[in-house]
Amino acid sequence: MEYFALPLQTLIEEFEKLPGIGSKTAQRLAFHILNQPQEKAQKFAEAILNAKKSLCYCRECQNLSDKEICTICSNAKRDHSVICVMESPRDVLQMEKTNEFHGVYHVLHGAISPMDHVGPDDLRIKELVNRISGGNIQEVIMATNPNLEGETTAMYISKLLKPFGVKVTRIAHGVPVGGELEFADEVTLSKALQWRVEL
Amino acid sequence: MEYFALPLQTLIEEFEKLPGIGSKTAQRLAFHILNQPQEKAQKFAEAILNAKKSLCYCRECQNLSDKEICTICSNAKRDHSVICVMESPRDVLQMEKTNEFHGVYHVLHGAISPMDHVGPDDLRIKELVNRISGGNIQEVIMATNPNLEGETTAMYISKLLKPFGVKVTRIAHGVPVGGELEFADEVTLSKALQWRVEL
Repeated sequence: MEYFALPLQTLIEEFEKLPGIGSKTAQRLAFHILNQPQEKAQKFAEAILNAKKSLCYCRECQNLSDKEICTICSNAKRDHSVICVMESPRDVLQMEKTNEFHGVYHVLHGAISPMDHVGPDDLRIKELVNRISGGNIQEVIMATNPNLEGETTAMYISKLLKPFGVKVTRIAHGVPVGGELEFADEVTLSKALQWRVEL
Repeated sequence: MEYFALPLQTLIEEFEKLPGIGSKTAQRLAFHILNQPQEKAQKFAEAILNAKKSLCYCRECQNLSDKEICTICSNAKRDHSVICVMESPRDVLQMEKTNEFHGVYHVLHGAISPMDHVGPDDLRIKELVNRISGGNIQEVIMATNPNLEGETTAMYISKLLKPFGVKVTRIAHGVPVGGELEFADEVTLSKALQWRVEL
């Protein structure tokens, strides 16, 4: 039974394909679009097409960019001898927000996960090795996620980079700032104890 | 500080404009679009433009339609002497899903709400009166929302339709099926008691 007019049904179905959007939310979003003036819907549609069309991967760091070399990699003020390795462009965003890191990035676009059939060759590891072998790199900070896949990836890459004699570090594990010890899991707490620093 | 490439930032901002979509979700959706093949993004953008372009309001019931008269109003098998008045096209969908109503609809596109500056003239009430005055209507079922605005609208319209001698009814209040009395509010429970039926 067709409840909605076809163009509306099509739009709802397109929204439903997005991750985390169920049928009720898809309906709400589709009706929102219909209640907007034509030019706003136009702008939305154009943003989709334009993002898809004009974005590529930075030749250096593999982050999403609209230029061949992204703004971070082409910024002379950044320390190009320190590379922070991250899983996704979103992770880069989070790191940039800290305002604490002034080096450059390398985006792997995933993590090694045999369960999901993701091996080292599916990630941008080759490109990272090329950058290191190009020389002038002092330190590689492994900032992959603190889960099984992220740890595996960090270990794998650190072994791979050993022969180049480059310093490879891992971001610290510990209790989150603002958290309560009562709710910290044992593994995190034992890491926090183990990695304690002198005050 | 610009964290993402501009076309990506634009797409994220477009998603953020949607109701109930925060910045994290907007990022997730934008990255999902980017991970899709070109033709899928194309289809999504087209669905937005197409829905906006080809949808109009049914001349009869004011529901969203891609034809001048919607499929329900043009269906000869439906009882055109019973009109169910609802606030939105989504409400029509819910009613259709019951498979219990075989009449036709009238969509008001809102409810009277002085707080939101929505008066009777902002709703499709004039069109409803025109339909009733056209004759052959046996019953008008007021199925607006069971909240203050919906009740006000139902009362207002029922008074407006009095002179036409048409039967105006209101959907029943009561405890929801599958609910538990423990969690029913007093107003609903007192309505359920008051509107009790003989078994």
